[in-house]
Amino acid sequence: MSSSGRTGRRPGNPEVTKQAILDAARTAFGELGYERATIRVIARRAGVDPALVHHYFGTKQTLFASAHELPFNPAELIARIATAKPENLGKEIARLYLTVVGAPDSPVLSLIRAAATNEAAARMMREFIEDLLLRSAANWIDAANARLRLTLVGSHMIGVVFARSIVGIPTLVALDVGTLIEAIGPTIDRYLMDPALDNL
Amino acid sequence: MSSSGRTGRRPGNPEVTKQAILDAARTAFGELGYERATIRVIARRAGVDPALVHHYFGTKQTLFASAHELPFNPAELIARIATAKPENLGKEIARLYLTVVGAPDSPVLSLIRAAATNEAAARMMREFIEDLLLRSAANWIDAANARLRLTLVGSHMIGVVFARSIVGIPTLVALDVGTLIEAIGPTIDRYLMDPALDNL
Repeated sequence: MSSSGRTGRRPGNPEVTKQAILDAARTAFGELGYERATIRVIARRAGVDPALVHHYFGTKQTLFASAHELPFNPAELIARIATAKPENLGKEIARLYLTVVGAPDSPVLSLIRAAATNEAAARMMREFIEDLLLRSAANWIDAANARLRLTLVGSHMIGVVFARSIVGIPTLVALDVGTLIEAIGPTIDRYLMDPALDNL
Repeated sequence: MSSSGRTGRRPGNPEVTKQAILDAARTAFGELGYERATIRVIARRAGVDPALVHHYFGTKQTLFASAHELPFNPAELIARIATAKPENLGKEIARLYLTVVGAPDSPVLSLIRAAATNEAAARMMREFIEDLLLRSAANWIDAANARLRLTLVGSHMIGVVFARSIVGIPTLVALDVGTLIEAIGPTIDRYLMDPALDNL
């Protein structure tokens, strides 16, 4: 796709170029799914060189996060979790999920809503999550069934965010986040570390 | 509302009357929410006596289940859980959730999808769940914070159903239900029975 038809786009204006990349990324992820929307495809649609996409946005994961205005960088989030003290791990993950990833004003809620009703959005979400699990998160769990363990954690947290911020179950809405973190933390620890899950 | 305008409705034909009640219930729950859609309102919309609604469908909970073609009767489901052996409780709940309530072809998936994108549907769901927790389920847990405990269980299970049957996360889809039940059961037991949750 050539950029010749774009009006108001001046080569060399970084902000305009960045925005064109983000727009191309958002539509490509939505139309093609996360896997098939390669950096090369997104660059072509934005009329720029793939190297420029990497230069501005790093990996495909961070480009995805930027394109959907996610309030976190997946790589940084995982790094923060990986460096948490073992005794705080479950609570730290619950805290990040409830106050950052799925906070009541987080764009992640829009992605969850879209995935619930639209197969293209569901596909985009599952491919992004699988990529996240495969490439980064699974590396910091030193236990068998790392991917299953992380999927159980993620499923639980999506459910809490869904029940609390989308359906609005009063019992959960009324509860302060600190108490919720206390309640959920040990479950996350169990999913990540309990040897009983090694042999499933 | 009079039924005089209805054509094809013969007083005394139970199947036609039942269907009219179910149709009136479905629209009333959707428009008014679960709380405000009383049996009296539903009966008036269907042009029948409230006693007839109770006669055919029992409580509002079972009417709700029938109107949405849920593959279970809430009261029977709770009775089955209440009579499970304590050592099987978590696994039994996980099994019922994964194979009945949120099975891949369950109409509950449609309700979850609707609640994700439509505030009226979300309200209907949260009022139905609160009513279920308040009136029946909370009675069989002999522990403090019964409602919070059940809400945590429900949130977790909605998340697993969402991730598995709506988003289709491959790691969960590939896992057989028996293994998933083994993994989740102990978490449910903890939420229902761990004394550490008494003091939240």
